[in-house]
Amino acid sequence: MFKKVYFDNAATTAVREEVVEAMAKSLMEDFGNPSSTHGFGRSSKSIVEQARKDIAKVLNAHSSEIIFTSGGTEADNLVLKSAVKDMGVEHIISTGIEHHAVVHTLDELEHQGLVRVHNLNLNSKGEPDLNQLEDLLKSLEGKVLISLMHVNNEIGNLLDIDRVTSLSTQYGALFHSDTVQSVGHFQWDLQKQKVDFLAVSAHKFHGPKGVGFAYIRKGHPIKALISGGSQEKGMRAGTESIHNIVGLAKALQLTQENYHQERSYIEGIKRYFIETLSREIPSVVFNGTSADFEKSTYTMVNVSIPIVNEKASLLLFNLDLKGIACSKGSACQSGSQKGSHVLSQILDEKALEFPALRFSFSKYNTREEVDYVVEVLKELLG
Amino acid sequence: MFKKVYFDNAATTAVREEVVEAMAKSLMEDFGNPSSTHGFGRSSKSIVEQARKDIAKVLNAHSSEIIFTSGGTEADNLVLKSAVKDMGVEHIISTGIEHHAVVHTLDELEHQGLVRVHNLNLNSKGEPDLNQLEDLLKSLEGKVLISLMHVNNEIGNLLDIDRVTSLSTQYGALFHSDTVQSVGHFQWDLQKQKVDFLAVSAHKFHGPKGVGFAYIRKGHPIKALISGGSQEKGMRAGTESIHNIVGLAKALQLTQENYHQERSYIEGIKRYFIETLSREIPSVVFNGTSADFEKSTYTMVNVSIPIVNEKASLLLFNLDLKGIACSKGSACQSGSQKGSHVLSQILDEKALEFPALRFSFSKYNTREEVDYVVEVLKELLG
Repeated sequence: MFKKVYFDNAATTAVREEVVEAMAKSLMEDFGNPSSTHGFGRSSKSIVEQARKDIAKVLNAHSSEIIFTSGGTEADNLVLKSAVKDMGVEHIISTGIEHHAVVHTLDELEHQGLVRVHNLNLNSKGEPDLNQLEDLLKSLEGKVLISLMHVNNEIGNLLDIDRVTSLSTQYGALFHSDTVQSVGHFQWDLQKQKVDFLAVSAHKFHGPKGVGFAYIRKGHPIKALISGGSQEKGMRAGTESIHNIVGLAKALQLTQENYHQERSYIEGIKRYFIETLSREIPSVVFNGTSADFEKSTYTMVNVSIPIVNEKASLLLFNLDLKGIACSKGSACQSGSQKGSHVLSQILDEKALEFPALRFSFSKYNTREEVDYVVEVLKELLG
Repeated sequence: MFKKVYFDNAATTAVREEVVEAMAKSLMEDFGNPSSTHGFGRSSKSIVEQARKDIAKVLNAHSSEIIFTSGGTEADNLVLKSAVKDMGVEHIISTGIEHHAVVHTLDELEHQGLVRVHNLNLNSKGEPDLNQLEDLLKSLEGKVLISLMHVNNEIGNLLDIDRVTSLSTQYGALFHSDTVQSVGHFQWDLQKQKVDFLAVSAHKFHGPKGVGFAYIRKGHPIKALISGGSQEKGMRAGTESIHNIVGLAKALQLTQENYHQERSYIEGIKRYFIETLSREIPSVVFNGTSADFEKSTYTMVNVSIPIVNEKASLLLFNLDLKGIACSKGSACQSGSQKGSHVLSQILDEKALEFPALRFSFSKYNTREEVDYVVEVLKELLG
């Protein structure tokens, strides 16, 4: 029997049928340029603005705070580069285990001499030292931005958002959070959660690839990274990808419809995966806080298998041959031959020799798939 | 009788049915992340790479020279900003009638003190002084980039690409052309036409909005404008918008299938429009070279109507009430209240008081629509 099991939902997700339908309809019907003043244009404009309102409602934000981008990476770039260039940010406090969209952007800004980057210490679970964050906020002079992701995309660690927003508010720092693995999976209330910026991507929650948004709290004078026309109130030039925006809004709204039920279902899959794997292969080690349900996302687990032999090094390859999709870390870096930049910061050299795998789940996964995957893993390692 | 006539195809075009079908299929089937190494990912990767090859073939380019972006504006930004930052360009020769994606980007680069911009003189038809271009190329010291669009998006003027490539080659300058109104409407052979960079947008030739590409000739060390993952060989981070890329490639291929027939059909519509309009409203003035079939695109005409009264100022509004979509210039600036930055550079103050309209055509337009539009125009001005 040959099965296909997709346990790589942190890399990307299947697009929901309702989303595809809404997008196909929009592609056929809404072809006017939203910047055109005639009827065709106004009709497209109203569709884009309705999507913006729908998204803002899910987050309890103002629709003017939602700036559409080509995805999470562009949103991270827009926020970070503009905060430095247009808002006078001189120091950025972050960690080395952010997504490359943040890490590489900060490297670039620091390399250009535009900002100083301060990476917080991490413990062996990958948790940033928030006391050090407070010390830095106390001691740094000049405008400070904190950039810490809510859900780590490789190990699933959850940030203590409330503590960070309380610190950023207390010390007058800006706070950006890469929420590419969070929005669509966790519920946000931006009237209560005082972040300044978020980066969001549709394809992580069953929406289309190539669209996302930056949340930019009212009053922050962000200027365009991509210059040209006056779309998105001058904050992002380029004709709007209407069908993608429609798909993004639809996908985000659908995450809310059966939110608690779907969340609990996916959490059940993760729990069952951890139990089954621990029972069948007792030597496994869970990386980060990924086996702690209080401190990690319900969608993902990262596991090291403490063996070093040929079977171990070919594990991902052999899982693929069996139709099982998981990953050794972020998809965005799998083009390169380097190992995970996240695990390399938190594990010791010996632990890094073991194969590490990220399994990430969606509402389309089943317990039968878990049984199959654990069985295959056991067989491959046996 | 109420009709709807869409004569604003330079702002954007209706998506071809075959393109919508290909995109809907891709959205349902190709959900893997092209950066993932497993089967789902490899399958998506091969679709993206096939699209890249298909596009390269149309342009007679190498597929490695096609860098996917979120559209023409991003492609212009990528090329111009990177040429200055990564290739040491010190002078850019351009004109004030480029699209805002170029004009505003050059303003920004000059304002940051990174480059000096030299705008060529224009005659009253909007034609740049190419003798002045040669003089500048002779006299400027340091690396020079020429940025001149092939087809002007408001008045339809065609650039003498052969003369510019011959000058850029002779004087060792780089040459970027915003071809958002050209690729998909004109046939390019990049083995013969020695441009260094192009910016292309799918939605101008019946493809989807939110996708395009930069053509970057082999060997030019362009670095990412959007940093992060290692997609697009490190030149553009962010998960690829597979369905949009599929739509882009499909739409571009379809422009080639009946190229000469469709071109001649659209040119016939433009010719008929000019004839009918000139006969019925003899006072009209054609702006730029748009009534000269040798020197302008076959897809567009820009016309001033030499009257100044209330009827004139409400012309666009009243045309819209009659279901007729045309524009006063680029859609990308119609959000702002300013007049056309193109016409303001080439017409005198008196001529600028007259209403100017851009009519732009596609294969979906008919001569009956021309009759209707001219009839309505006559009625509105009568």
